[in-house]
Amino acid sequence: MQMWKQYRKYIVLIISFMIGLAMWLSPAPEGMQEKGWHLLAIFISTIVAIIMQAMPMGAIAIVAIAVALITKTLTLQEALSGFSNHIIWLVVLAFFISRGIISTGLGTRAAYIFMRMLGKSTLGLSYGMIATDLLLAPAIPSVTARAGGIVYPILSGLSKAFGSEAGLGTSRRIASFLTQVAFQGSCVTSAMFLTSMAGNPVIKSIAAEAGVVITWGSWAVASIVPGLLSLILIPLIIYKIYPPEIKETPQAKALAHQKLKEMGPMKRDEWIMLSVFILLVGLWAGESFFKIAPTTAAMFGLAILLITGVLNWKDILKEEGAWDTMVWLGTLLMLATYLFNFGVTGVMSQKIMGHVVGLNWVTAFGVLSLVYYFSHYFFASNMAHISALYSPFLVLMIAMGTPPVLAALTLAFFSNLFGSLTHYGCGPAPIFFGTGNVTIGDWWKLGFIISVVNIIIWLVVGSMWWKLVGFW
Amino acid sequence: MQMWKQYRKYIVLIISFMIGLAMWLSPAPEGMQEKGWHLLAIFISTIVAIIMQAMPMGAIAIVAIAVALITKTLTLQEALSGFSNHIIWLVVLAFFISRGIISTGLGTRAAYIFMRMLGKSTLGLSYGMIATDLLLAPAIPSVTARAGGIVYPILSGLSKAFGSEAGLGTSRRIASFLTQVAFQGSCVTSAMFLTSMAGNPVIKSIAAEAGVVITWGSWAVASIVPGLLSLILIPLIIYKIYPPEIKETPQAKALAHQKLKEMGPMKRDEWIMLSVFILLVGLWAGESFFKIAPTTAAMFGLAILLITGVLNWKDILKEEGAWDTMVWLGTLLMLATYLFNFGVTGVMSQKIMGHVVGLNWVTAFGVLSLVYYFSHYFFASNMAHISALYSPFLVLMIAMGTPPVLAALTLAFFSNLFGSLTHYGCGPAPIFFGTGNVTIGDWWKLGFIISVVNIIIWLVVGSMWWKLVGFW
Repeated sequence: MQMWKQYRKYIVLIISFMIGLAMWLSPAPEGMQEKGWHLLAIFISTIVAIIMQAMPMGAIAIVAIAVALITKTLTLQEALSGFSNHIIWLVVLAFFISRGIISTGLGTRAAYIFMRMLGKSTLGLSYGMIATDLLLAPAIPSVTARAGGIVYPILSGLSKAFGSEAGLGTSRRIASFLTQVAFQGSCVTSAMFLTSMAGNPVIKSIAAEAGVVITWGSWAVASIVPGLLSLILIPLIIYKIYPPEIKETPQAKALAHQKLKEMGPMKRDEWIMLSVFILLVGLWAGESFFKIAPTTAAMFGLAILLITGVLNWKDILKEEGAWDTMVWLGTLLMLATYLFNFGVTGVMSQKIMGHVVGLNWVTAFGVLSLVYYFSHYFFASNMAHISALYSPFLVLMIAMGTPPVLAALTLAFFSNLFGSLTHYGCGPAPIFFGTGNVTIGDWWKLGFIISVVNIIIWLVVGSMWWKLVGFW
Repeated sequence: MQMWKQYRKYIVLIISFMIGLAMWLSPAPEGMQEKGWHLLAIFISTIVAIIMQAMPMGAIAIVAIAVALITKTLTLQEALSGFSNHIIWLVVLAFFISRGIISTGLGTRAAYIFMRMLGKSTLGLSYGMIATDLLLAPAIPSVTARAGGIVYPILSGLSKAFGSEAGLGTSRRIASFLTQVAFQGSCVTSAMFLTSMAGNPVIKSIAAEAGVVITWGSWAVASIVPGLLSLILIPLIIYKIYPPEIKETPQAKALAHQKLKEMGPMKRDEWIMLSVFILLVGLWAGESFFKIAPTTAAMFGLAILLITGVLNWKDILKEEGAWDTMVWLGTLLMLATYLFNFGVTGVMSQKIMGHVVGLNWVTAFGVLSLVYYFSHYFFASNMAHISALYSPFLVLMIAMGTPPVLAALTLAFFSNLFGSLTHYGCGPAPIFFGTGNVTIGDWWKLGFIISVVNIIIWLVVGSMWWKLVGFW
């Protein structure tokens, strides 16, 4: 097994390398400078390695940078530029800040408060989980951390409290239902804020290159109507087609009450964390009013947490997810930036545009959206999918005549929603699937049904809403 | 105690802040732009907080950046620029690579080989430890990791083998002597390569601003003669004035033999690690010949280690020292860069120069060197000292007429050597002092004696050597 894994790694690496090499040795397309073509070869190689999971993304990123440097495709300054990119640091800082939400117990407290409020029935409980997730989404850019660090422990505690566990064969009592709602919900909440999924800022940055400016505030405005609609409807639909056996849950309210009593009143650190959280969301949402960049606000928030000792420096250093994200996200963003700067993106757009002008954009937009969504069956991470396909699909849609903002937003939200198709499609998937509460058949079936629901909501209601608020 | 620590932190933070605020509110010196003066206020505040150890350096760095951003003294791009600095990444990458030297066992093997070669006598053993340290120094930029991760375990194993332990009151048998040699040696080896101490690249960068170009190769050439002389003489001197009770150690050779037998032949990972190590040192030393930047070489080396699986990505993420260094070193370097770019360094130099032109440079250089060295009694880290004083001392010396290269090199080497004055002066100090093998009185006495030896060697022999090779 270990042996095969080693071999597999080398085979995949060699395939990725050969693809890049073949491109490298072919002549550059007309109008594209040599350097741009070479960078594209490195980029394609990198994406292939990521999609085929040759190594963890960070390791692939290091190799990609090394190759770009050794071949002198990029200068040192260019190759390292991603690590001082303010979008990357927004994500990194939000990772650190989210550590405080988890470690102070504020996240858990929020979950129990919602449970106490809504926990009379199984359906209410499921909304409680979703409300917690939604509340925390703006400041926790790792949907995996949110799912694994806050929602999962609550889900797991609840399931146990109702004797509903995979090991006992009693999942369907309540655990199966809650697991699916938590999972589907996490994919929706991650779509709702610029800072609720690590890949969202990358989308913002790629969209900007295509001329579509998205701010923290405009992202939130665009998502609020379809997002809330999804979050309201999804539990109802799952409740209908995949119902829990237990429907009334007075114990849950009692449990929440008990847990909150054990926690006692809000502690000093929780108050500080809550204040910083409110401050940050306020500054982020009011970016155009306050004229403070989101990254500046986050740096300021983290400084407060460090000075007050809510977080200490050791916590920061141990936050592996942040460093990991910095390396791979920084590298991908850097590659995308230089593909743009070297004119590669431009040449490609021109070529595509030359071929498709004149087609009916509505049909094209619809078809391309669906292809983008369902191609996620072949991806094991949102980020790999976004890096590989967001930019070309956006260019293609715009070339077809789709209003740029409509195209950018649809693809942006789909880049989160499609994670719920499979049991490997995004970070939370393996966590929730790993509970064993939902069979793989049910998982895929529900994944498909909800995808249809989400597509209708975001494509139809969404585009109408964005028209209404004047986005396109 | 905990309470007092909390209070102390706030008091120190407030003092640092007030100093900065007082500067901020005072008018800028003539000829200095407002923005530069404000940045200097933030910088001085930061250095005070670091020297007084308000918080770990990384946390202070975050606060410094937050203040610079919120006050709009720096733009986001400027404030984050340190994190994509190639010098910072050289250090960060070397941290990762050094993890491989430790985890593959290559470092330990080297130590045992030297022990087998030189371990017949206590003096020989001490040279064995120093040789190990020196051999690994070029690729392990954390002198603390080298001391703590490789030398310390060997030292500790040897002491036990000879029943020489602080707990038994038998330190003087052999442990006291070896501890002092290992400690003093580590401060010398850290002075010998651009990549053997995290602060050395910062020195290179500050020196460049004063017009002195130092490469990996020229650093090594400059240090080789005084460095080897120090490494040869120091054990002899300590042996003379602080002798071990046991002088013949045939057991050590046997122990080394035994340990090497247990380790078996070099494993695949060790061979790869060794090859990468040799490749890197070759590329670094031959920078001007190969035209490959040291950071590019390091990135390439790390890529090899990741592809071959000698290091895996988890190891990298857990390498807290690297991330820590990236943040604080990146921030300090960024601040120093903008002090220079905003003309602060220039104005200061002009002012100083106006006052001191005409004095005898030889005396001034000598006195300033000694003041720089012995002021380290007041510092708990090389880095804090370098950040605070390297630049002003260099400017002052040059203003006095000292040949720039001579000034830059002397201060550079002293910035490592002075760490051995006290039991808190540099990273390895608390590690070795913590063994309890050397009393505090002996520690300080030996620290002072060796400092005199080092100063004579590096100031007299060093400057002659640098003259000989044409550096000044």
